[in-house]
Amino acid sequence: MKQIASRDNPTFKRLRALLEDGRYRRLEQAAVLDGVHLIEAARAAQCAIRRVVVTARALQMQEIGRLVNALAATGSEIIEMPEALLRALSPVETPSGILGEIAIPDAVSPSALGDVLVIEAVQDAGNLGTLLRTAAAVGIRRVWLSEHCAQAWSPKVLRAGMGAHFVLSIAEHVDLNAALDGWQGKIIATALDVRSQDLFDLDLRPEAAWMFGSEGSGLSASLIARATDLARIPMPGGIESLNVAAAAAVCLFEQLRQRKH
Amino acid sequence: MKQIASRDNPTFKRLRALLEDGRYRRLEQAAVLDGVHLIEAARAAQCAIRRVVVTARALQMQEIGRLVNALAATGSEIIEMPEALLRALSPVETPSGILGEIAIPDAVSPSALGDVLVIEAVQDAGNLGTLLRTAAAVGIRRVWLSEHCAQAWSPKVLRAGMGAHFVLSIAEHVDLNAALDGWQGKIIATALDVRSQDLFDLDLRPEAAWMFGSEGSGLSASLIARATDLARIPMPGGIESLNVAAAAAVCLFEQLRQRKH
Repeated sequence: MKQIASRDNPTFKRLRALLEDGRYRRLEQAAVLDGVHLIEAARAAQCAIRRVVVTARALQMQEIGRLVNALAATGSEIIEMPEALLRALSPVETPSGILGEIAIPDAVSPSALGDVLVIEAVQDAGNLGTLLRTAAAVGIRRVWLSEHCAQAWSPKVLRAGMGAHFVLSIAEHVDLNAALDGWQGKIIATALDVRSQDLFDLDLRPEAAWMFGSEGSGLSASLIARATDLARIPMPGGIESLNVAAAAAVCLFEQLRQRKH
Repeated sequence: MKQIASRDNPTFKRLRALLEDGRYRRLEQAAVLDGVHLIEAARAAQCAIRRVVVTARALQMQEIGRLVNALAATGSEIIEMPEALLRALSPVETPSGILGEIAIPDAVSPSALGDVLVIEAVQDAGNLGTLLRTAAAVGIRRVWLSEHCAQAWSPKVLRAGMGAHFVLSIAEHVDLNAALDGWQGKIIATALDVRSQDLFDLDLRPEAAWMFGSEGSGLSASLIARATDLARIPMPGGIESLNVAAAAAVCLFEQLRQRKH
């Protein structure tokens, strides 16, 4: 097993850059997963773990020890690192003791995978990760993210996604207007508009592109204009809007309910 | 208008403690609201703003100037503070230029207000605020929070709540088992359990106490045992769980849909 004992080690520097620097992540098309759950989710999706960094203490834990053995057997580079050094790398407050580097999977071509989640400029990492997690749960398989979204493969979005990344095809920096030009199905947005209909009165069974915009300013006018259906989520409690990830959960599960029942 | 020009000013120290120190907030039963939106929401709910801290620049903005005039007319103490000092107080990265201090409203007695949202040990401030915002949107009027939840009146929870706090009766540090002893309606939890039924097959129209637990470990066994109905949110996409606030949004809006349709 290799050892890294210094912050000057090139692999240490690379991992830190992948964790902290979105531009480097994009350039390298690589990301770092923190913790057993995300690494297991990647493996389950046949996403190769290039290298694993682990502390001696973490290796003593049965779950991590087994995982590392399995990864070593399938060709992952295994590196041991002192606790303090890993803590300097790890983005969370209670480091899990294990990190894994992967190549960011290519998004599949936007042709034949059913519904699509279309996200414009959602900058909060927790919200974006929750959106991905919810989409994956209902069975959506592809996501288009505009410019000015949080980076999908950043540590915080990965953490909030809880493995959703590995069952989704995620395309980032998408020109949403161009992408929707070729879209044949419904295009649905939530909006407070005179044209809006109650979400629960809409027929949500056909294939759909679901559009959600940034917390502050919502969807841009050019995207709203593309919607075939505008949905109003009823809010009898006198609050004027929902968190974007909560709104998406309501919409996507209503679609699931209508298709099942 | 009073001026504060030093960090040694007792009011400056008090505001900082209310923003940063949960124990002090609880002792004083007071909280600080950041920005026009939250202060307006408090006013709309007849919650008095004791004092307002504002920068000279913010006062030039029409929206803030009008609000401060209205607050001065109804007895709020108005204090001007230099930009750098307010920035040292304000919890957000782009300070709004205005803070308001309120007394934390008393929770009304847990007798007659319909459904209740019951939260156990949700520690993420964003999740807790989103839960409150969603509950308020569907028209739920009271919330019981256990020990070990994020503090409802902390700056981050207030921000994520987007004004929900002022249309809810929020009881904190509640002994949930004792509180549910007197509960006559349904008690519903989401759980992966052999007894669980598909959420969309449950009759959700009766009055209900909705229980949601912490992200990591879910609800405690003693609360699960109290449930009259266990709901399984269908997740055909192969992801095993939802973010707690997303799960609550799905449940509460399904209840709303069933009652309307």
